[in-house]
Amino acid sequence: MTTLPADPFEPGGIALFGKRLRGGEITAEAATRAYLARIAVLDDRLGAYQYVAAEQAVAAARALDGLLAAGTDLGPLMGVPVAIKDLFAVDGMPTTAGSNIDVGDLIGAEGRFVKALKRAGCVILGKTKTVEFALGTTGISKPRGTPWNPWDAATQRIPGGSSSGPGVATAAGLCAFAIGTDTGGSVRLPAHFCGTFGLKTTAGLWPTDGVFPLARDLDSIGPLTRSAADAAIVFAVLTGQPTPTASPVRGLRLGKPVHYFYDNLDSNVAACMTAALTMLEEAGADIVPIEVPEAPEREKYFPAALPADLISVLGRERFLAGRERMDPVVAARGGMGLEAKAAEVLQVKWWRQQLCAAAEARSEGLDGWITPTAAIASVPVADFTDPAEAMRLTLAITQDTQPGNLLGLCATTTPIQMLGSALPVGLQLLCPANHEARALAIALAIEDLVGPPPRPDLSGFLE
Amino acid sequence: MTTLPADPFEPGGIALFGKRLRGGEITAEAATRAYLARIAVLDDRLGAYQYVAAEQAVAAARALDGLLAAGTDLGPLMGVPVAIKDLFAVDGMPTTAGSNIDVGDLIGAEGRFVKALKRAGCVILGKTKTVEFALGTTGISKPRGTPWNPWDAATQRIPGGSSSGPGVATAAGLCAFAIGTDTGGSVRLPAHFCGTFGLKTTAGLWPTDGVFPLARDLDSIGPLTRSAADAAIVFAVLTGQPTPTASPVRGLRLGKPVHYFYDNLDSNVAACMTAALTMLEEAGADIVPIEVPEAPEREKYFPAALPADLISVLGRERFLAGRERMDPVVAARGGMGLEAKAAEVLQVKWWRQQLCAAAEARSEGLDGWITPTAAIASVPVADFTDPAEAMRLTLAITQDTQPGNLLGLCATTTPIQMLGSALPVGLQLLCPANHEARALAIALAIEDLVGPPPRPDLSGFLE
Repeated sequence: MTTLPADPFEPGGIALFGKRLRGGEITAEAATRAYLARIAVLDDRLGAYQYVAAEQAVAAARALDGLLAAGTDLGPLMGVPVAIKDLFAVDGMPTTAGSNIDVGDLIGAEGRFVKALKRAGCVILGKTKTVEFALGTTGISKPRGTPWNPWDAATQRIPGGSSSGPGVATAAGLCAFAIGTDTGGSVRLPAHFCGTFGLKTTAGLWPTDGVFPLARDLDSIGPLTRSAADAAIVFAVLTGQPTPTASPVRGLRLGKPVHYFYDNLDSNVAACMTAALTMLEEAGADIVPIEVPEAPEREKYFPAALPADLISVLGRERFLAGRERMDPVVAARGGMGLEAKAAEVLQVKWWRQQLCAAAEARSEGLDGWITPTAAIASVPVADFTDPAEAMRLTLAITQDTQPGNLLGLCATTTPIQMLGSALPVGLQLLCPANHEARALAIALAIEDLVGPPPRPDLSGFLE
Repeated sequence: MTTLPADPFEPGGIALFGKRLRGGEITAEAATRAYLARIAVLDDRLGAYQYVAAEQAVAAARALDGLLAAGTDLGPLMGVPVAIKDLFAVDGMPTTAGSNIDVGDLIGAEGRFVKALKRAGCVILGKTKTVEFALGTTGISKPRGTPWNPWDAATQRIPGGSSSGPGVATAAGLCAFAIGTDTGGSVRLPAHFCGTFGLKTTAGLWPTDGVFPLARDLDSIGPLTRSAADAAIVFAVLTGQPTPTASPVRGLRLGKPVHYFYDNLDSNVAACMTAALTMLEEAGADIVPIEVPEAPEREKYFPAALPADLISVLGRERFLAGRERMDPVVAARGGMGLEAKAAEVLQVKWWRQQLCAAAEARSEGLDGWITPTAAIASVPVADFTDPAEAMRLTLAITQDTQPGNLLGLCATTTPIQMLGSALPVGLQLLCPANHEARALAIALAIEDLVGPPPRPDLSGFLE
């Protein structure tokens, strides 16, 4: 049996690592080597990484150690090893966007977001897997493979998508944190299914140049972290804002949607949500029943708009030439986009603007809305072989995340499986556009209340 | 021969009227009645108005006089009689959007812009004609008729569109000023062809609720006034900003596009532009040759996007049911929108975003770009009977305005026919998004330099 090197960010996360780094107890290079060693041991089975930049990462880490020794402190993310969804261009690393079709020209050169991570002193370990073109929420993807959810070594369960690699890498301790993107739930769903914290930012908060575009009006960048505390640090460093601190729970007014968001819950999710809501109420939060009649519109918006968005990005010719080599689900969805008429797509996009305005009005007087992140916990990959069952599951998976993108909100997802589930379950907090700092402050309070989530037992993945 | 009551805003415009109103030399009611009398005499021939709200206007004017007498001064627009393009909902007045098809549900109730005019104390004289659905730049429109350009009583010449009625009403002194909308030139072109000042604001500056939407990403509201000075007052009142004052000409850096914008000029436009540029240079402005390679992209954008925009607004069913009753040009353009594919339209809309960013960069270090407003002065309506000639003329008409909408700019157009043309000619100043105050300051300087334009001789329109 192989031994697994310790995760250098466990316990204590980014803050404690920073203290230890500055106290000389650890180096960026040692942390980087620890993750590379864990990747070497685990990732053949887990398949979280698409590309590991071992040499580049060690060289960068060593240089950062030298810089810190020379008195140049780049701040809280200095020396922190991070994994990037393989949808982002990073200098010196290949980018697949989860596909076997070349789309490098659509991604372009390394963008401002990755450059900001580097300026903050992050060590980029490599690229983690994405569903092809980020179009898919289960994490199942044929062209570049489906990462294995680390919570079950015996049965392959879905990791959630499209940021499947970032979810698995963060949950299994193959990086300090990871960067994903969220267009319909692609940060929140892997966080939910893998048991990590996730921050879905408002579309437009961070620039998406150098990132494969799926739907330019919805695409958002967000971190998957091991805690709200880590996400608060990442957010603060990359926005230049103060680091959010926990809000008092007493006096919070949290909307609980009466309809839709709490439909179709499996027993794991139902048990955790009941416990979480009770805990919040007992701590003094006001849980207010609310109506969000705009939410079900996601069932119209996403099928109408996203396929057309994809074809507009790929171009008709590239799609037609490549569709045989694409994931069958992506090829089928893209196929719907070939024939979509402009008038109707412009109509749903305009309709979406109206819904965003309605949702903003609906948020007045509330600190946020509280829902499960998905209606179900992770299910076996094999359950998706039957198309009807796959459709039913997919609708349950996206039921609570897509409304957030549709309505232009930001969101967090906090692991709450310790309240009553063997598998990870996420508690979603939806906040108005550009209220990330407020969402994180509330998420920090929830984290204080529910305590740190368990980490997956990885022994089953060791030879 | 009928006698024509004097235009109460001539000379002196809004500022002098305001002084005379407060000095007791004139009342809002008297001004309103003067315009109603001028409309009664002239508008059978000119056809600028779709609906004259005589009783409502007189009652409002009288009430405003009472309010002023009671010590409530609503500011510089108090008692000013204004004409509204028949694309806006105004309480108590019908709205046709230039069509025989009912589109009231798409316009909704009186919107914020009209309410702001009323709160500022404007007297609304009525609704002025628009090309059907604001889709057309010549002013020729079958369903509700083509207003007669007041500069030629013998031959019917185009007034420009789509704000054809606002252009004719302002030029002929049938209102103090008028409100139009501009999606591809619809404020600037009637101002150019009728010899008024025009302000095309940045899309989004003023809210377009209560206005028929043609292309929601391009639609902008703007006044047609008898001078830059009047436009500066209207702009200041409706934005709450200080009233712009004339910028010094010396030291202005004005870009003169080397390509495209100065192509196809007729002799009237060419002569006026040469004289205007010489005058500006002699006054100390730097005329800098610039390249704007993005401008010709308007030839791709407008045919690809606008028909689809129209169908997305009208809905497929309404268009199909009503197309036989529509203007033939509008019906033909709408027809292209029926089959437009979403992928390509989303592509050109995204491409437009890139062009806007490029144009913004291209504006750095310049106070604005200076061009003709259109390549030709007004031509006879009869010239548009031949389709090939109609297409050639239409391309020349929109050559210099559509790039402004495409690139997300704001603009002014100043009458300069006195520099060398019998027919009106406009000088266009294009400025970056949200630089209206700066554009007006420069336009005020140009106005000081070239002097007030002549007014049309209306004697030919009197019986």
